[in-house]
Amino acid sequence: MSASAVARPDIAPVRNGKSVLILGAGISGLAAAYELSRKGYAVKVIEASHRPGGRNLTLRGGDLVDEVEYPQRCEFDRHADLYFNAGPARIPGHHAALLNYCKELGVALAPFINENRNAWVQDDAMFGGRPVRNREYIADSRGFLAELVAKSIRPETFGATFTQRDYRQLLEYVRQFGELDERFKYAGSTRAGYAIHDYTKPPAYKQPLDAHELLRSGFIYLMSFSELDDQSAMMMEPVGGMDRIVTAFMARIGALVELNSPVQSIRIGDSGVAVRYRKGGSTVNAHADFCLTCIPMHLLARIEHNFPKRYSDALSAVPHGKLFKIGLQMKQRFWENEGIYGGISWTMQDIQQIWYPTHDIHRDKGVVLGAYTFSDEVAEKFARLPPAARTKLAIEQGERIHPGYGRHVESSISIAWHRMNHMFGCPVRWSEPLQAQCFRTLQAPVGGHYLIGDQMSYHPGWQEGALHSAFHAIADIDQRVRASASLG
Amino acid sequence: MSASAVARPDIAPVRNGKSVLILGAGISGLAAAYELSRKGYAVKVIEASHRPGGRNLTLRGGDLVDEVEYPQRCEFDRHADLYFNAGPARIPGHHAALLNYCKELGVALAPFINENRNAWVQDDAMFGGRPVRNREYIADSRGFLAELVAKSIRPETFGATFTQRDYRQLLEYVRQFGELDERFKYAGSTRAGYAIHDYTKPPAYKQPLDAHELLRSGFIYLMSFSELDDQSAMMMEPVGGMDRIVTAFMARIGALVELNSPVQSIRIGDSGVAVRYRKGGSTVNAHADFCLTCIPMHLLARIEHNFPKRYSDALSAVPHGKLFKIGLQMKQRFWENEGIYGGISWTMQDIQQIWYPTHDIHRDKGVVLGAYTFSDEVAEKFARLPPAARTKLAIEQGERIHPGYGRHVESSISIAWHRMNHMFGCPVRWSEPLQAQCFRTLQAPVGGHYLIGDQMSYHPGWQEGALHSAFHAIADIDQRVRASASLG
Repeated sequence: MSASAVARPDIAPVRNGKSVLILGAGISGLAAAYELSRKGYAVKVIEASHRPGGRNLTLRGGDLVDEVEYPQRCEFDRHADLYFNAGPARIPGHHAALLNYCKELGVALAPFINENRNAWVQDDAMFGGRPVRNREYIADSRGFLAELVAKSIRPETFGATFTQRDYRQLLEYVRQFGELDERFKYAGSTRAGYAIHDYTKPPAYKQPLDAHELLRSGFIYLMSFSELDDQSAMMMEPVGGMDRIVTAFMARIGALVELNSPVQSIRIGDSGVAVRYRKGGSTVNAHADFCLTCIPMHLLARIEHNFPKRYSDALSAVPHGKLFKIGLQMKQRFWENEGIYGGISWTMQDIQQIWYPTHDIHRDKGVVLGAYTFSDEVAEKFARLPPAARTKLAIEQGERIHPGYGRHVESSISIAWHRMNHMFGCPVRWSEPLQAQCFRTLQAPVGGHYLIGDQMSYHPGWQEGALHSAFHAIADIDQRVRASASLG
Repeated sequence: MSASAVARPDIAPVRNGKSVLILGAGISGLAAAYELSRKGYAVKVIEASHRPGGRNLTLRGGDLVDEVEYPQRCEFDRHADLYFNAGPARIPGHHAALLNYCKELGVALAPFINENRNAWVQDDAMFGGRPVRNREYIADSRGFLAELVAKSIRPETFGATFTQRDYRQLLEYVRQFGELDERFKYAGSTRAGYAIHDYTKPPAYKQPLDAHELLRSGFIYLMSFSELDDQSAMMMEPVGGMDRIVTAFMARIGALVELNSPVQSIRIGDSGVAVRYRKGGSTVNAHADFCLTCIPMHLLARIEHNFPKRYSDALSAVPHGKLFKIGLQMKQRFWENEGIYGGISWTMQDIQQIWYPTHDIHRDKGVVLGAYTFSDEVAEKFARLPPAARTKLAIEQGERIHPGYGRHVESSISIAWHRMNHMFGCPVRWSEPLQAQCFRTLQAPVGGHYLIGDQMSYHPGWQEGALHSAFHAIADIDQRVRASASLG
């Protein structure tokens, strides 16, 4: 978990102009370009799209969303507070490679909040669809569970190594866990909060929610969300938008990046890799000793190439997921009047989540994430709709959580990653059998060519995975260059 | 929980110069002065100390800590990042009165992190004193607990209203809760994190900690800390230090505040309240229609006064707690190299907590809270030591969590609130019997005199409690003024 454990590869400087072509200016491509160029490699980055960053995409007023069939222009007010991280939006504290870059490149970071106990949970299956505060849902679920545990457990269940002292300690743990009373009954929890916030009177705590209603809800999975390794506090975000990381890389190596340059063919030979790409109206031929590609593998499979059949089959074998997000510019930060500062409300409706901005508290306006779904079916349901209808659906469902939600919406921008040009999917969906079958094949270089990107990590969907894949390829190139130098 | 539910009292403007003396420039006194003066009351605030704010105290290089016997000068570098909130340091999202002031007065807020799963827990009773990551401690405790639950519970325990479906849903809840496998066994949790962070290889998760060791620990209470109503996410802090709130009030009403003015006597009469105080070398006599006092009640009891005996007895009846904190300026943010960004490490040692700054991530230096204890005994243990010895003790204990801790320490400042001049205690310790016996007596006005402050709330130790107490008194004054106006 320490920074040093995932330090960038310590590659040797080169003097004889070893050349590298990088196909795709996603995070792995940019980091590779930065690392290699500072060690003397002659680097060129070729990017099909009009912008660098890949899925690291922050949308602001004026930006183009290059979605096939439904290209959109973001109509947010042009203000530093008002942006939408359409791709990655948070960084856990143990993503040391990415955090190292933020430090080195001067990208300011601020805390990001996943879990807010004042936010809402809403499920039609419980309480007739009435939203309840996350803090009540969690405190009462824990209380209810703890009481059942205290009622059920007997020391003899646990075998001989379990002492009476262990048992008493466990009961105490259970009591604290659920805030049970002296008789191990759950009679409501102060953690659920006050029914009335008037601190000049004796406290009136909330009555516990009905346990049967709680058990009707489908939030079992969701309520463990912020326990996940990569989602638990403290999370962070770059101040001003996730693409500050892209901007920071571009400030160093922007001169090496050619945008609007779709690759047409990749040919691996004995002396390196030849790449043909389009630029303006012409075709450009490039050649380099090495080539790193972070083009999504299912798109790479369709580019003319001479990869071995086994490799080429593997490129097409791994499916990509669908993912939909919508950002809504709200004319008023109404959620703050509900005591919600940052974090996520959860619902079992299609929109699944509403995110409130953690940054720029108490400003006039704010951009809310109005839907975030990674179920293929629901993402496709949204994606098939034209943008205005997506917004309408997101608002209708948001109204179930915040009555009057829609009247705050000034502008919206949506993104269906599986229909985004040059992307057509997000993220790669490795299964264990597929990993066993294809991962090593695709991770190994073909001649001087390496496949990189979050797709080539065991952590797809995270920038940290993308960086590790780049480091892995770079380290291998370094070894080969050193070996050939010591031969020469 | 909504802002409107705790809106400030809607008091009527006065034109005839009704006058109010406010004794003490703590948060309740400042807010009262602000509210009353903007409605036309003639307000004067009299503060014994050299500074406004009361326990809202942020220490920076050059600041004086006015502790009896051990006055200290803060020697931190004079830099905007380097400050120590010696009093309150965090604001929950439902403290709407305080948050309203932050909004109205333009105090910028940022998220504050209590719980960081990458931080440490350390207890000599477990693992031979070796610190473990909070995420491992919690994930494994939950896993262990969940497995016991799954083993123990039987549907028949829960009575007739508990259906088979409820039972299956509960088991599913338990499984998700502890991340149990298909057979409801706990075999380690991905939530505990990776043993090695290399995302180019199949993940190696951490092995579960020994359950018996976990049960040996005394963290049962502490591990529910961030479940508490007032400690659960999302917490906030003013950007630049908690005293930005004091500064913001002072920008509006600073002209009404007289510092270095200890009160000598309070006499309540038919036509108002007479107050005598010292200022420079002289004695000043002041008189007003009303008087609001946020002087700590045990100190107020010792000021010459003519309160009824029952009231005066009550002032002396309520004990005050002891509280010790130490801030350490670290020459390097070494904790970030351990993946710790913000949050708290917990230990069963005297220091109890180490807080890492949530703000100014990746800067060179940072101020860490090196001890925070509200146990009377331990606070007294620290308080009796001279400042250098306090630092030494805090470092020795910090070394158990971060080997090499001490060599990062450049400067330290400590505060024993029960020895602070004009304070001598923190916070008031109401018990239920004492509340029943004294609270209403002290809350009711004596003539034109009102006792306010967090001490006169059911939420002592929080600025929100202080504000509510002020609102309560102001609303009562408003009612009396309106009543006398309608008589006139």
